[in-house]
Order: sequence, then structure tokens, then C-alpha cells
Amino acid sequence: MPEFVPPAIPRVAALHAYTPGLQPQGGGWIKLNTNESPYPASPRVARAVAEAAEGLRKYPHPGSQGLRAALASRHGLDASQVIAGNGSDDILNLLIRAFAGPEHAVGMTVPSYSLYPVLAAIQGAALVEVPLGEHFALPVEAIAACGANLFFLTSPNAPAGTAFATAEIARLAGSFPGLLVVDEAYADFAPEDAVPLLARFPRLVITRTFSKSHALAGLRVGYGLAHPAVIGLLDRVRDSYNVNSLSQAGAIAAVEDAPYYADLIARIKRTRAGFESGLRSLGWFFHLSATNFVFVRPRRADGSEGPPVARSLYDHFVSRKILVRHFPSRPETAAFLRISIGTDADMEAVLQACREWKGA
Amino acid sequence: MPEFVPPAIPRVAALHAYTPGLQPQGGGWIKLNTNESPYPASPRVARAVAEAAEGLRKYPHPGSQGLRAALASRHGLDASQVIAGNGSDDILNLLIRAFAGPEHAVGMTVPSYSLYPVLAAIQGAALVEVPLGEHFALPVEAIAACGANLFFLTSPNAPAGTAFATAEIARLAGSFPGLLVVDEAYADFAPEDAVPLLARFPRLVITRTFSKSHALAGLRVGYGLAHPAVIGLLDRVRDSYNVNSLSQAGAIAAVEDAPYYADLIARIKRTRAGFESGLRSLGWFFHLSATNFVFVRPRRADGSEGPPVARSLYDHFVSRKILVRHFPSRPETAAFLRISIGTDADMEAVLQACREWKGA
Repeated sequence: MPEFVPPAIPRVAALHAYTPGLQPQGGGWIKLNTNESPYPASPRVARAVAEAAEGLRKYPHPGSQGLRAALASRHGLDASQVIAGNGSDDILNLLIRAFAGPEHAVGMTVPSYSLYPVLAAIQGAALVEVPLGEHFALPVEAIAACGANLFFLTSPNAPAGTAFATAEIARLAGSFPGLLVVDEAYADFAPEDAVPLLARFPRLVITRTFSKSHALAGLRVGYGLAHPAVIGLLDRVRDSYNVNSLSQAGAIAAVEDAPYYADLIARIKRTRAGFESGLRSLGWFFHLSATNFVFVRPRRADGSEGPPVARSLYDHFVSRKILVRHFPSRPETAAFLRISIGTDADMEAVLQACREWKGA
Repeated sequence: MPEFVPPAIPRVAALHAYTPGLQPQGGGWIKLNTNESPYPASPRVARAVAEAAEGLRKYPHPGSQGLRAALASRHGLDASQVIAGNGSDDILNLLIRAFAGPEHAVGMTVPSYSLYPVLAAIQGAALVEVPLGEHFALPVEAIAACGANLFFLTSPNAPAGTAFATAEIARLAGSFPGLLVVDEAYADFAPEDAVPLLARFPRLVITRTFSKSHALAGLRVGYGLAHPAVIGLLDRVRDSYNVNSLSQAGAIAAVEDAPYYADLIARIKRTRAGFESGLRSLGWFFHLSATNFVFVRPRRADGSEGPPVARSLYDHFVSRKILVRHFPSRPETAAFLRISIGTDADMEAVLQACREWKGA
């Protein structure tokens, strides 16, 4: 095929795409690199999907109204405060398109979700980075003064896994003058969340996903909770049929099976506690997790730590067919590995590999 | 809830959203307003979806590689020339984000798909409209000179339903200096398509959808065909997991059941021919359709035509629980109704309602 330079707009021609975690297609891996659930979704989901698959000739409900109603009911909100998306990434993208641009900067803490800078770059918006610092405390004053029109706060934080206190988020929501987005992808694993703050702060947006706690990463459903005026704006930039019929039906079935998920989340938290105590036995530093992963800094038997040490353990995991995530490009993250919580057996295999590596 | 004006960027605050066709939730309607298929999708689709529903805890394949390979094979292209999307609207949106902006105008013919102006407005791109004229001939020279960086040509045209000759599209592709997108949502119902031109014109992009000819509007799958350099750029602005696991599996199953769809498309074309001959008996003007709909200008018994006449027939259809589409806001379309091709019985009901209305 002849060479060709397409006439893209300059910022896109210069862009680097977001790199998702590896999805190995072969079997046999213990896959702890993308914070998927080790347990299947509620069996009601597959039934609802199979039923919806009989009606695919028709367009989906354009506004996902049934799903919005179910989510509103789950959170004690009005349906006008809810928007559904093709994954929460869709909601983040809609927020960027409605509230960011060359004259309207995007803010984020560093480190946090590496998709935000990509979305800001696609939109041509300046990016303001506010460091979280070594202890991952919420820098309320620095964010309030950062000048962004739209700020993404991941809480619980990724990749650290630590939760910010709702009282601190309230202090931030009261002082930041732009739109504050609390990305609660992992909130189901945390002791508290920011939903009660919506009644007090119209400039607050909360995003959620079915991918992690609801074991539905393959379904691509996320949602946003906000003031109806914000939801109305997001609906204007939303694709008319952004959530397909199968995803709408599956997500509604998941919301309706709350007891199943309460049990599933409790199991993950129990396994997490056991894994954290195994890491303590190894003497390694990690952040106390409020998510379904643990961010840990491996240490060799000789006491050394750092990016090459983390990389060495990463490689050892791969040799044991265990896949985790390493973020080598930032100093705050390069000495750590992010390990999703799998089954008890998965985490025992991880600890066993850690002991082998440490002893080697 | 207190009033609140969110800090949206000005162009979004001023935006009007695209209005999709009505999706009545009650039963009993003959629904001919959104060009859905009156027949179900291949039964293989529901089986593939049900199987994929068992693996939803994992993320989808980020690049939809299996689907791209199946589509490449269908069209005799390389997989590097294919991108899959959450409906072809997703592909149109990616094209806008990569090739349009305040300095890079978007062009379209008028009339055509009313989503293009909405996408251009969201992106802050100027819109250049090139009139098709009364006979819906392709204005090659006017498009070539229109100054847009990205041009959307719907072929077969919507809402007229007429096809542009591939030789004319080739002439346009050879003379338009920007990226030319041929939106072939309806090409499966047409006598020819522009896919063979891809080998000659690197600035040509073709978009397709499973919503119409493949009876999968609820699945939200569309795709783009282009030079690998164009596909690479679209992948940079694409959401990492834009097509969910169920949609990937269902679309692959559909592509693999080509005989089923050849039969389904042939059936629609037979029904269309019968409907067109019924309209001829009424003495009404319509454009010869290369799609699964007919764009017709109703005429009263007294010979009058025009927007109120079209509206009157629309209302009569509604009283008979038949839903069609009226585009009253443009002079080229306001005297017409767009009627999707349903089953033979659906179209007989439409013709019966036309005769009643004309006689009344």
C-alpha cells in the first residue's frame, strides 16, 4: 500500500493513544492486570442479555431510560440526575467534550487514571497536574486554585488504591470553582462514597462503572450522577444510542440483583484483607486498599527497592503466568506493581511467586 | 433542586442535540420511521451473544481484532484497513475528532444525515453545505471546491434514497483535496458500492453499519474502511473498548452468515419494488430507492402537494398506528415522507392508509 499522510488536525497527528492493560488471548493466565472481577456476573445478567438478543432488529432505547431509572432508585436520586454510558470512559469523554477545550483546562491529580491526559489532548485542552505527594493526601487548596474548568479526582485513587475521606471531598467541592468529577470506579470496595454530597454541590459529578464490582467489564456500562442541568448538557454531546440493547438489559438485571453483588464485593474484600496480611509478612510497603487491587512496592531480600526491582518481580510473575500492571513512566509509580484481587487461590499463587522471587 | 448553570464551553451550551426517530415503547405499531429491518437477525447472532454473555467479567478485545479480520475478509481488504465502532455513528464521530475543528471545516450535501451538523457543532468546526439540487445529482465540482477538510457523502443518499454512481464518486475522490467519507449505511440495498475505489484513493473512507441490512440496530456495530494510516489515526482517538464483547461476538456471527443476509436483503428489495409500484398507481412522485426506505411526496386528490400535505398524511398514518419520518425543517424535504420498507403486509397497510387518506 502506498505511503499516505492523512490530513488530520495537528493535535491528533501528534497524539499518543491510551494503552489499555494486556488482554492475553491464550488461556492459563492468572490475570490480575486490569482489575476485573475473578467471579462471574449475576446469572440474571446472561438471562436478560439472551432475552434482549431476540429483539436486536430494533434500535435501543436512545436514552437508556429504564437503566437510568434503576440506577436512580439504587442511589436514592431522581432519574434526571443520571446518565448511562458505553463504559464510564464514555461519560469521562462526554465531560471533556462539554467542559474542556483550548480555553478550558482539565485538571487531575498525579498519579491517577492515565486516560485523562489522553482525553484532554484529543480535545486540545491544557492539562493541569496536581501532585498527590508521597502519602496520597488530598491537596484541597492546590486543586481549588489550579485554574481548571473540569477536574478529575479518582476516589478511591488509582493506582494507589487509597480512599479520600468524603469530608475532604466535600471541602474540595465547596472550594473548587469548576466542575469536580469524582471518578468512583472503585467505590463499591470502599468504606464510603461521595453520592450524599450531590444534594449539596451542583458542581459535583460522580462517575461509576459496572466493569469492576459488577463483574461486567465486557458489557461496557458506566454512568454519571450529577445535577440535572449537567446531565442535560452531557446528553447533548452524547451519541443517540450510546448504550446498546444488550448492555441496557444486562445492566438493569445487575442493578436488580443487589444481594448477589453485596456478597461478591464482601468476598473480594475478605480476599484483599488476606492478601494484605501476606504482604505484611513479606515486609513490603503497600497502600491500604479501598479498591479491588493493591499497589505494592516489592523489596528484595537485600532491602533494595525501585523501578528495576518492580520490573524484576513483574517479569518473575510473567514466568509464572501471572499478569499484573507496572506503570514505569512516572517516579511515583515506577517502584510499585498494581495487583488486582483475584480468588483466594490466585492471591496465594501471587504470594508464593513473591516468596520465590524474594528468596531467589 | 436549585437552578444551576454548569460551566460548559460556549459552543456546547448553545447546542441543539440530534433528534433520533421515535422509539414507541408500547406495542401495536407498524414502525417504519428508523429504517430498521422488519425481519430478525441471523439466529447465529443470538447464539454467539449468549455464549459471549458467559464471559462478561473480562474486558472485550480492545481492538475488536476478530471482528476486523472477519470484515476485512468479507470485503477483500487487509485488517489494517478496518476499524469497528459502537455503531457507525461512533466512526463518524472519530472522523470528526481527528479531521475537523475550528480551523478544519466539515462539508456535507444537503439534504443528508442530520447528525453531521450536530457532530460538527460539538467539535466547533465550520459546516459547509453543498446543495444536491432537485434531482439529487452529485455536485462533484462544487464539493471539490468547497474547502472542507472532511466531507460526508451519504451514498445511497438519505433521506432521498437514491444512489450515486461509483464512477461519479471516483471522479469526486480524485478531485476533492480533503478526506472524503462515503457513508454507505444503505449500500447493501444498492446495485453497487465504493469499496473497490479504496485501492485507488487513500483519501477515501467508507463507513458501514449492521443496523439496517443486518437487522442489528440494537447491537450498535458499525465500521470504517480506509487506508491503514487513516485507521491508525482513528484508533488514537477511539475509546479503548468501544465495542463490547457481546457486540463483537454478534457481529462476527452475522458476517459469517452471509447466505442468511443475502436472502434477507433480496426479500427487502422485492418488497420495495412492490411498494414502489403501489406508489406509482397512486400517481405520487418518489425517488427510485437504492435503500430500505422510499422518499415519497404525497399528493392529495385535488393535486396539491407540500409540507402541510405531507404532515396530513403523517398524521393519518399515526391514526392507523403507522410511524414514518417527516423532516419538516428543510424545503427540500418538507413535502416528503420517508417510509422504511417493512414486510409485505406492512407495506400493504401503508398503501391502504395512503388510499384512504387520498380518498378522504
